[in-house]
Amino acid sequence: MDSIAAPAPCGIWTLDPQLERDTVVVGDLSLSRVLLMNDANFPWLIAVPRLVGAVEIFGLDDRQRTQLMRELALLGRALKDQTGCHKINVAAIGNVVSQLHVHVVARRHDDPAWPRPVWGALPARPYEEAARDRLIQSIRRQVDFG
Amino acid sequence: MDSIAAPAPCGIWTLDPQLERDTVVVGDLSLSRVLLMNDANFPWLIAVPRLVGAVEIFGLDDRQRTQLMRELALLGRALKDQTGCHKINVAAIGNVVSQLHVHVVARRHDDPAWPRPVWGALPARPYEEAARDRLIQSIRRQVDFG
Repeated sequence: MDSIAAPAPCGIWTLDPQLERDTVVVGDLSLSRVLLMNDANFPWLIAVPRLVGAVEIFGLDDRQRTQLMRELALLGRALKDQTGCHKINVAAIGNVVSQLHVHVVARRHDDPAWPRPVWGALPARPYEEAARDRLIQSIRRQVDFG
Repeated sequence: MDSIAAPAPCGIWTLDPQLERDTVVVGDLSLSRVLLMNDANFPWLIAVPRLVGAVEIFGLDDRQRTQLMRELALLGRALKDQTGCHKINVAAIGNVVSQLHVHVVARRHDDPAWPRPVWGALPARPYEEAARDRLIQSIRRQVDFG
């Protein structure tokens, strides 16, 4: 059945415009584009599988899910090691931006939202360029973006 | 190095007392105990890997992570199919309860928190027993708890 409302099952993957506006690119892993949220309140990465039309984790096949999990673990470990944070929060929510994307957020007991989740907790505070670049470089030192 | 502060790397796994208070057991998958949050605002499952001392997803080994992902996909698919919801939210937060646990929540455009995340959004509304049992039975029909 044809429907113009259905997500395109083929075509070229592009990043959702809102994710593009809110982030800077850290690099590409084999499945996901990795973004840094432009919010200096929390070291906050987002992994976006480069799969056209992906919305739900259960919609991925076994191989894609396993690879996504591997990449989330890499990113979580790197954020923990590079920031010395106390807890990693990992979440695929997607109530506002439907393109499948997974948040990986470094949390500290003294961060401005602790222990609440970060989503909607407070307005984004854009990075100063030098601090942003230092964080990105530290992630790139630990994670091989090829 | 001995330390009484480190989490026990061996011993018998037990469910965190707060998770136990807030939920009812749906069943055990090969890795995770599956719980239903006693909050009728949202159909809300929690998967708790039965691994002593597990706190972070990146602390699991490859095999455990792959199995956790498989179980999260099963639960997400079942919640979607059985509730007809619009979006599944999946999250490992753990800022309050450190025992690794992953939320799988069925969201609707007309639910009382949409599009905000559910954590801390509104007070839990305990189920009436019949509604709770119907939901649990519907999950058990789709997911094989062995």
